[in-house]
Amino acid sequence: MKLLLQFLFVFSITLVSASEDSLFIRKIHTEALVKGEAYENLRSLCKDIGARISGSAEAEMAVYWGKDLLESYGFDKVYLQEIKVPHWERGTTEAAWIINADNEIIKLDILALGGSIATDGLIDGDVIEVMNLKDLQSKTKAEIEGKIVFINKPFDQSHIQTFKAYGACYPIRGYGAIEASKLGAKAVVIRSLATPTDEHAHTGTMSYKDEVKKIPAAAISTLNADKLSSWLKDGKVILKMEMDCEQMADVTSYNVIAEMTGHKDESIITFGGHLDSWDVGEGAHDDGAGIAHSIEALRILKELGYKPNHTLRLVLFMNEENGNMGGKSYAKESFDKGEKHICALETDRGGFLPIGFDIVGDAKQVDFVKSFKPLLYDFQLFKFQAGYGGVDINPLREYYPEMIQLGMSISSQRYFNYHHTEADVFETVNKRELELGSAAMASLIYLMDKNL
Amino acid sequence: MKLLLQFLFVFSITLVSASEDSLFIRKIHTEALVKGEAYENLRSLCKDIGARISGSAEAEMAVYWGKDLLESYGFDKVYLQEIKVPHWERGTTEAAWIINADNEIIKLDILALGGSIATDGLIDGDVIEVMNLKDLQSKTKAEIEGKIVFINKPFDQSHIQTFKAYGACYPIRGYGAIEASKLGAKAVVIRSLATPTDEHAHTGTMSYKDEVKKIPAAAISTLNADKLSSWLKDGKVILKMEMDCEQMADVTSYNVIAEMTGHKDESIITFGGHLDSWDVGEGAHDDGAGIAHSIEALRILKELGYKPNHTLRLVLFMNEENGNMGGKSYAKESFDKGEKHICALETDRGGFLPIGFDIVGDAKQVDFVKSFKPLLYDFQLFKFQAGYGGVDINPLREYYPEMIQLGMSISSQRYFNYHHTEADVFETVNKRELELGSAAMASLIYLMDKNL
Repeated sequence: MKLLLQFLFVFSITLVSASEDSLFIRKIHTEALVKGEAYENLRSLCKDIGARISGSAEAEMAVYWGKDLLESYGFDKVYLQEIKVPHWERGTTEAAWIINADNEIIKLDILALGGSIATDGLIDGDVIEVMNLKDLQSKTKAEIEGKIVFINKPFDQSHIQTFKAYGACYPIRGYGAIEASKLGAKAVVIRSLATPTDEHAHTGTMSYKDEVKKIPAAAISTLNADKLSSWLKDGKVILKMEMDCEQMADVTSYNVIAEMTGHKDESIITFGGHLDSWDVGEGAHDDGAGIAHSIEALRILKELGYKPNHTLRLVLFMNEENGNMGGKSYAKESFDKGEKHICALETDRGGFLPIGFDIVGDAKQVDFVKSFKPLLYDFQLFKFQAGYGGVDINPLREYYPEMIQLGMSISSQRYFNYHHTEADVFETVNKRELELGSAAMASLIYLMDKNL
Repeated sequence: MKLLLQFLFVFSITLVSASEDSLFIRKIHTEALVKGEAYENLRSLCKDIGARISGSAEAEMAVYWGKDLLESYGFDKVYLQEIKVPHWERGTTEAAWIINADNEIIKLDILALGGSIATDGLIDGDVIEVMNLKDLQSKTKAEIEGKIVFINKPFDQSHIQTFKAYGACYPIRGYGAIEASKLGAKAVVIRSLATPTDEHAHTGTMSYKDEVKKIPAAAISTLNADKLSSWLKDGKVILKMEMDCEQMADVTSYNVIAEMTGHKDESIITFGGHLDSWDVGEGAHDDGAGIAHSIEALRILKELGYKPNHTLRLVLFMNEENGNMGGKSYAKESFDKGEKHICALETDRGGFLPIGFDIVGDAKQVDFVKSFKPLLYDFQLFKFQAGYGGVDINPLREYYPEMIQLGMSISSQRYFNYHHTEADVFETVNKRELELGSAAMASLIYLMDKNL
């Protein structure tokens, strides 16, 4: 009898708690969808600030924008964390053409890759096409020397998650200039890392190596890549290009931070996205949406009167795109100050439909997060599986290997139509999809805070 | 020992079968994403044919377009099923203005509701606002007589599934003219059934009743509805409107049908969408996407060499939007011919991200379909629950109450931005989202055919 009563007691506590959680998660969603401020905040970040690469005037304005907005919500603490960030500028000249044996000329849709050096005026060279880095590495110096290498690796469309196609192409952008330069290439142009075949060039970060000569590197649109490839099948093609981009001295910038203080202990749950973006478009999906999601998540929890157990710390990270100095500095300072971190959650996959959460942790931690699935099914969050958290929070793992990290999983079908392009603008974000992202973030922060 | 062996045998059969299914579903997705034809077919339907309301020249062209395309794929049978459909025309004049006490004038974004009568030239009347049908029914004849009734019921944004918000507003469009006319109104205008606040008017079907005088009925954009409502708070507003839409005599039209013949028995699995659309925009999401999904599903199964157990019958239904004569005629003829129907599957919720299937059936049938969930999880299809199949296949239930019906569930967040508007055009459909819809259809048809 006693056992039965104990069972019933525990059982009813569990039921009450689950139903209390359900009600609260329902309230979070209603607040986000009916009285949400994420969409207007994103509009403001995109239109009042604009593209905001680290070191730019816009990035500096974004810091003030973020701090002002967080202060207006009256969170317990709002402050800046000073960091040093790289400062690369695209400059004012960026143009390229291809010319075939019949003297036909096409102007290319081109963007210098972030970090590229300038060309020395208008340069030109014969184009040699390779399909990927391995193909490039198999060439001889005689084949490559003095030429412009064109790496034409397309997305594998068969992946359900487009991030897998992106991951497979990432090396051509990251290391193409190094490998081409080793064989004496004059410059490298890559096929944009993109899902669709269209006219947008996609920029993104790239690397040089100290002992290898730096050469200019740029991306051309997928449409241009197809055209260039087809011309090369017919004969010789010359590419002419000029770019005056430049790496400047590092500058001071900031992570922007807000907190709701925990009432149970001093341990910290970090969540956020990145405030910087590439310097084209408006950084709407990457990662204005994540900024809007995260700010809104904390606003909702405060608005609904939630009293957190642990400190909920919202971080608008600076410099994710080209250096990750925000994420690295945040992790190191947290550790140096002796802070206790138990969980970190990032949103950096666009303002599209949220579908669940990727989990970084041991099997027990993965199961712990998966136990929230039934509570979130009605909100169409279903994908809970081991995966990756995010670039900004990843450095925390080094100092806090025991923590759980989470990355909000968002339908990726449309992400690489806009990623790092002129087309990543506010108008491509759907209001309700953005709002559901905010609600998903707030719901998971609530569940982690209550149950950790 | 014998039991163990039996167990192992059955267990391994199940495993082999599940892994065979997984492989085949993977092949379906690869075909759809890498060599898919759905996107080009949708482009052609939208751009080469255009909006195609029943009875129009475009609807007639769509029938030939569909038959030609199906014949080009070499299915076992392609044929037309003759039906009679209503024929309503919007006409050439459709305009409205509101004028307030200060003589400010605004031209409205307006669309006659489908089936509405014309106005008698440029009519005008004082506007009276009501919030819903119940509010309207609570008014007296003295309050309504001679006025233009404005029903301003907004979507409840708190629903996760926007179809629920639509369902709650549906009566103001369907029955607003009847209820307003009973109280002597001159005309009725409704707030568009829409998610966003923007400049698009949303048309759609509406009803009259024989014993109630017919009055003109139209929808105005949500932006206009907000403005009109705010003006009414400040005083009297006059609405002037003219529409010369007209109900014509019924015309002959067709369902377009293709089949892959079953090799096991003569029972039939029907699937499809509707070929007609409203007369504005291009009917891209509603239901060009469903047409593209369904044709592509059968093409993929044929391309992969699948030999169906049952006859797979693809139906491009005519006249879903204003009469459902395609669906009704198909069901009745099927029964009259003594056909055996075991399953029907519809796609009529847009070309957005597919997320699962709604199931119509008894508990056992629902569980049967749910048993496919694990096979489809990797393809991000997770929502399997009791629900609604679709307007076109619904009449089959009357004749075949034992059959399973399925409606493809598609993320509904963006659907009511475009539904029944000028904005429902090809450019708003994402290629990969459309292709995943085709693959989801082909996968479920395969699983149903194999396991029923």
